[in-house]
Amino acid sequence: MVKKGMLIVLSGPSGVGKGTVRKALFEEPDADFSYSISMTTRQPRPGERDGIDYYFVSKEEFEENIRNGEMLEYAKYVDNYYGTPLKYVNQTLESGQDVFLEIEVNGAMQVRAVAPDAVFVFLTPPDLIELKHRLIGRGTDDMSVIDKRIKQAATEIRMMRNYDYAVVNDQVDNAVEAIKTIIKSERLRVTRVMPEYESMLGDD
Amino acid sequence: MVKKGMLIVLSGPSGVGKGTVRKALFEEPDADFSYSISMTTRQPRPGERDGIDYYFVSKEEFEENIRNGEMLEYAKYVDNYYGTPLKYVNQTLESGQDVFLEIEVNGAMQVRAVAPDAVFVFLTPPDLIELKHRLIGRGTDDMSVIDKRIKQAATEIRMMRNYDYAVVNDQVDNAVEAIKTIIKSERLRVTRVMPEYESMLGDD
Repeated sequence: MVKKGMLIVLSGPSGVGKGTVRKALFEEPDADFSYSISMTTRQPRPGERDGIDYYFVSKEEFEENIRNGEMLEYAKYVDNYYGTPLKYVNQTLESGQDVFLEIEVNGAMQVRAVAPDAVFVFLTPPDLIELKHRLIGRGTDDMSVIDKRIKQAATEIRMMRNYDYAVVNDQVDNAVEAIKTIIKSERLRVTRVMPEYESMLGDD
Repeated sequence: MVKKGMLIVLSGPSGVGKGTVRKALFEEPDADFSYSISMTTRQPRPGERDGIDYYFVSKEEFEENIRNGEMLEYAKYVDNYYGTPLKYVNQTLESGQDVFLEIEVNGAMQVRAVAPDAVFVFLTPPDLIELKHRLIGRGTDDMSVIDKRIKQAATEIRMMRNYDYAVVNDQVDNAVEAIKTIIKSERLRVTRVMPEYESMLGDD
């Protein structure tokens, strides 16, 4: 029996820097997990290559994938589809390799519904922490600015509740280190190593 | 509001090397958690100091602690009591500091019953892994030896099921590194950081 790989999902609010952190993570020499390339119907930007940055497909092709249940998650932004093809993820996990997804929050919740044993990491804007210090500080900020930021923070915190881990993106290096630590630690989870131990005893 | 500390419990089968790993862990320069000193009724061995290696108390004193509900966990081995006083653990956690316990498997299950949000790490003998390779190997081992080891392994694996993480004690350094990784990762758990985020929004 091959030990199944682990699915790691990185998500977070729009603009938090998910893509930057993911790219830096995959530049690490010890990044021993596979990146699942997203599929999209948008046009390639200069320098983007099919099968490396994205799988670029037509709208018809994408919708056929949806109809056939071949997308792990997907969403439509500004008339274009973005999503994760199921086949690559499943094949890689079955081969024992861990798979890393960097997706939007709606997509992450779709993955959570079908893969509850995946590891969900929420990337947090650093000003969520700064906000706290400001709020407990001398009250020198304009109240309307604080109010607006509090509302936004509340939304982000509500999202965070659906994740396993929260990583603050104060510096890309710190965030990368934290995600690597989480992955290493999750590989030691009894629920993940147990099948391997049990398999050597037969049905116990 | 002070963020509450995290309780970390290291346990494992008798003879696996829990004490050695714990001592090495606390020699690390970045060991930023407190060790909870056990209480015992056994006589100090040469070089052991009260309040450093153990709290050495009389049988009567220990039994009064039990009656008053002042022990987090305890057990009796060969006519002597061993256990964890509740007061130090609670005070340290309340102050926001993480607490590390290194205790026997029965004690760990007592802690689990009252502190389900603690982190439970099971230290595994390396031969549990070796056993697997031997079993799937050429079958050159004496079958009665293998049988005996399989029975023991089954017992250890059944214990492991009650823990969050399994760390193989193949080398002390590796085990220490793994435990540090688990602690760092657990500090990023949404369930642990959430109260801090929520407190800045009031009742949300």
